Parts: sequence; structure tokens; C-alpha cells
Amino acid sequence: MQERAEATRRALLEAAAQLFFERGYVATSISDITELSGRTSGAIYFHYGNKEQLALAVVQAHFAAWPEVIARHDSAPVPALERLVRLSFAVARQFRDDILVRAGARLWTERKAIAVTMPTPFIDWIDTVERMLTRASAAGELAAHTDPARDARSLVAAFFGLHTVSDALDSRLLIEDRLADLWLLLLPALQACPAAEHLLRRARDPLPAPLG
Amino acid sequence: MQERAEATRRALLEAAAQLFFERGYVATSISDITELSGRTSGAIYFHYGNKEQLALAVVQAHFAAWPEVIARHDSAPVPALERLVRLSFAVARQFRDDILVRAGARLWTERKAIAVTMPTPFIDWIDTVERMLTRASAAGELAAHTDPARDARSLVAAFFGLHTVSDALDSRLLIEDRLADLWLLLLPALQACPAAEHLLRRARDPLPAPLG
Repeated sequence: MQERAEATRRALLEAAAQLFFERGYVATSISDITELSGRTSGAIYFHYGNKEQLALAVVQAHFAAWPEVIARHDSAPVPALERLVRLSFAVARQFRDDILVRAGARLWTERKAIAVTMPTPFIDWIDTVERMLTRASAAGELAAHTDPARDARSLVAAFFGLHTVSDALDSRLLIEDRLADLWLLLLPALQACPAAEHLLRRARDPLPAPLG
Repeated sequence: MQERAEATRRALLEAAAQLFFERGYVATSISDITELSGRTSGAIYFHYGNKEQLALAVVQAHFAAWPEVIARHDSAPVPALERLVRLSFAVARQFRDDILVRAGARLWTERKAIAVTMPTPFIDWIDTVERMLTRASAAGELAAHTDPARDARSLVAAFFGLHTVSDALDSRLLIEDRLADLWLLLLPALQACPAAEHLLRRARDPLPAPLG
């Protein structure tokens, strides 16, 4: 695609994300998006077809955000369970700060009002967490009563529940503190040798960004 | 209120709940509700004023469902932590089976599209769970590293996250098994003397219904 076309496509996606996030799908019109983006409605129809497809593109951009973040944490030079804890903080920050991620999350909750098939959420996260717990278990880091497949589902549910509650009660401003609180409850259950506070002191810091 | 007026009011509320739950707020019209309930649109305007107020009444009926359930579990003749675990299963079943509760939950997620002020969720649950954990702690049932105020927020978030994930992946059919899995992860962290499976075997059974 030409550079200018790509810039238009991106500007439309970001304007749409901003409006879908603030107003929701139903209350956002094509003309709101042209106004905020400074592009024409013709550009929207050319690049995305219609409002449904634009919403789907925002949700897909949300889903596309994660593989790089996961890969970076999978290879972090820290113990296996700490990789998972660090990943959870990185994802929480992105849910708070990244407009494409926030808009994608809101559109997903409004999916029943949007006439497109959305990707199924949670499944990829459950697989990722199970894989990371299995590695931690193989490394002897987990308590005997843990079960990677079972606990992955519970961890993913707890993590996303935290976002729902934080969104309702504090506009996600306290999400990092709430996530630390959740780990203070969970780590003593997960760790073979409980040392929750020690791990958390390190794991809240972001990993260095990849080079290049 | 006359008995007949009360029956009309209730029939409208239940028809509205059914439709709001199945189709969502925006896609449900007053005439859909008159059709399903067999009452007139005049009855809707007389009893509820408009569609927004009818949605609010459904959400309020959802919130009104809990005090009796909580009181029944607060006085159950079982250890304090087991009361909380039993309450969680009772609430999970009601979220799966009770149309007013399910409709209220869906309307709450759609609240930004509805021009009324909804009650704030989660706060009352966090207070209830904190109170029940505090009693469990006073009874010596909780591990030393637990903190009723902090852990109440995490438990409520994890519980509601479980519903979101179960709603997306299995239409809440597996919610009781998923809740048991969550407790198998959490109880070893919470209990002073871990005995998760022992407690869970008892706590999944409903309490006997109140007399009268």
C-alpha cells in the first residue's frame, strides 16, 4: 500500500477507536469519524467498507497488539513465574493507556449490537497463561496442588474481572495497585516457596523495550 | 397497590427482562414488550414512564435480589469462610438461572447507551465479602498473610471475571465447575489450615430454602 494510503487508513482507525471508546458503537456516526480524522466519508468506505467493518478492524488491532508483548515476556531473562507476573502488568498498562486496546475492549462488550463476527477472546490468553504456568511448573517454581490448565482459566478470569471492576470504580487509574493486590493473594497459593512480595517488587517494572 | 396492578407491573418487568436479556436494550422496543407481555403500551407508560425507567427497574430488581441471599448465608450454621464459599455458588446459580438477574447484568454492561443513572455495582459485594472475611479471620480460619479489605476486592473481581469468561465461552453452563476451580486455587492461599477440597465438597450444595 502507498504510504499516503496507509497514513489515511491509520488516521481513520485511530479516530474511530477514540470515538468508539468514548461514545460506544451505536452513538458514533461515520460523519463523527470523518470530522475527527479530517478525512472524507469516501475514504472510510474505500478503506473499510462500512461502520461494522471499521469496528471489526479496531477489534482486530486490539487482538494484534498481544503477540509481540507475549513474545518479549516469554524470553525475558527472569524465572518463569515472574515472566507471567510481568506480562500481566504490561497488559494492564496497555489496557489503561492504549486507545486501540481500550476501544477494542469496549466494542467487544458491545458485540451483540454490531453485525460482524468478532474473534473469540480469552481463549488465546488462557493458552498463553497455561503454557507459562507449565514452564514454571517444570522449573519447580509451583506448589504441588497447582494445575496449569485449571489455574490458567482462573487467572485469566480474575485478571479481566479486575479490569471490569477497576473500570467501574476508578476508571482504571488504580489497575496496577489492584493487580499487585491480586498477586499478593494468588502468589502464596501458586509458589512452591512463597515469596510474593519479593517477586512483586521486581515484576512491576516494565521490561526494557525491544531494540529497533 | 391492587393485586391486578401488581400482576401487570410484574408481567411487564418479566417480559422486559426477557427481551433486554436476549436482544439488549437498543434492539428491544416498547411494542416488543407489549407483544410478549400481552399488556398495552399504555400500561407500560402508566407503570414505568418510559423504556429507560423500565430498564432501570430491571437493574434495581437485580440489585434487590441479593440482601435476602446474603442474610441467609450470613446466618448459616457452618464455619465463616464456608459461608462465603456457599454464597458464591448461590450467586453464581442465580446469575445463570434468574432472568431478572441476567437481564440486569446485561443492561448494566450496556449502561452507557441508556439515559438513566444506574446503581454502582461491586461496592456492596466488596463490603459483604470484606465483612465475611473479617469474621473468618476473627475465627482464626484465615492465613496470616491475608487481608480482608484487600482480598475482598480481588475476590469480587475474580468472581465477576469468571462470569464474563464463562458467558463468552460456554454460555455460563460451566460456571459452577469454573467457580470450584477458582476456589481450588484461592482456598490454599486463604485458609489457615488448607483443606480446600474438603470444604468444597460441602459448599457446592445449596443451603435449604427459608421456610414460609
